[in-house]
Amino acid sequence: MTRPARRGRPGHDLESVLQAAARLFNERGYDGTSMEDLSRRLGITKSAIYHHVRGKEELLRLAVDRALDGLFAVAGEVEAMPGPAIDRLERLVRGSVAVLADQLPFVTVLLRVRGNTRVERKAMARRKDFDQFVAKLVQQADAEGDVRPDVDPLITSRLLFGMVNSLIEWYRPRGGVGSTELADAICKIAFGGLRRDRGASAPVRSAP
Amino acid sequence: MTRPARRGRPGHDLESVLQAAARLFNERGYDGTSMEDLSRRLGITKSAIYHHVRGKEELLRLAVDRALDGLFAVAGEVEAMPGPAIDRLERLVRGSVAVLADQLPFVTVLLRVRGNTRVERKAMARRKDFDQFVAKLVQQADAEGDVRPDVDPLITSRLLFGMVNSLIEWYRPRGGVGSTELADAICKIAFGGLRRDRGASAPVRSAP
Repeated sequence: MTRPARRGRPGHDLESVLQAAARLFNERGYDGTSMEDLSRRLGITKSAIYHHVRGKEELLRLAVDRALDGLFAVAGEVEAMPGPAIDRLERLVRGSVAVLADQLPFVTVLLRVRGNTRVERKAMARRKDFDQFVAKLVQQADAEGDVRPDVDPLITSRLLFGMVNSLIEWYRPRGGVGSTELADAICKIAFGGLRRDRGASAPVRSAP
Repeated sequence: MTRPARRGRPGHDLESVLQAAARLFNERGYDGTSMEDLSRRLGITKSAIYHHVRGKEELLRLAVDRALDGLFAVAGEVEAMPGPAIDRLERLVRGSVAVLADQLPFVTVLLRVRGNTRVERKAMARRKDFDQFVAKLVQQADAEGDVRPDVDPLITSRLLFGMVNSLIEWYRPRGGVGSTELADAICKIAFGGLRRDRGASAPVRSAP
């Protein structure tokens, strides 16, 4: 995805207006944010903002689309990949973590959408499509015998992405941990389990 | 926790006012909900609501305290439990899932709090205490050698409860799956991993 280089001070290009809008939506909620708030945050007039966008709902659409386009790009890659579904599922998790870390304010807006406007409902419908893509991949891995048989694939897919999506609540990219390290941790825990496998490393006791 | 039995029509006792308020906060956000909205939802006058509570902020306080008291009751039990930290961690996860399923609207309010008011900031501080309790338990399990050594305990505790807390986004208690089944699924995936352990069940191939 190429973006125009940022030039001049904030609010003088669409990208900086969009970044500020996403952050405000996350702080105050979409419904609780006005164009007046945004103009104050950016220190520019409302008409300067309307030079870039038609209004608040267009800013919301651009924000959620940035997140969704990123996630669907990963899904597209995964769909084209050969190999067992369990490996493609892991690739999907890793790619999604990268999108979340890279587009954190936009994915946060997406995941907090409530469905009170047309743009929100459309975003929720696309999110649902993505969730179904995940669920199908887990079901396929299950059919291929690669998923433990004692959990429901639908619940598994929800929990797996529950773990991924929780990043928006606590991950701060500048905090030190990189997105690759984070994806590693998620994959190790979700696919291998956090309990240490003592059977593999402990010395085998002599059988009676 | 004992609650007064619901009597009469909704809005005629504090419990039904609180339930309706929590649901509205979750639909529209705390900032986006007015006492006017609540009176319309309940079909009673605002003064009938003020008979039960001083205002919106008190409703928020009661809602988040319901959730927090439930979670801290589980933490208290776990703290008093003997045995390895990894087992107490599993007990904490199971107890927390039960609280989430049982108090879903209230936990949802808690997890969406933004910190714009005094009540919200106090709730966030108590949540942080709970998160630190989880983190310490993971660190202890790690020190006891029961957690895989290749993930950071702090990230592990975040991811574990990221999985648990994701329930508010998709779990509906009336949808069929019980909270015990859900807790089982979370514990199996988080502690054992979702990948099937072929080593344990597949026939061993002859080594060259």
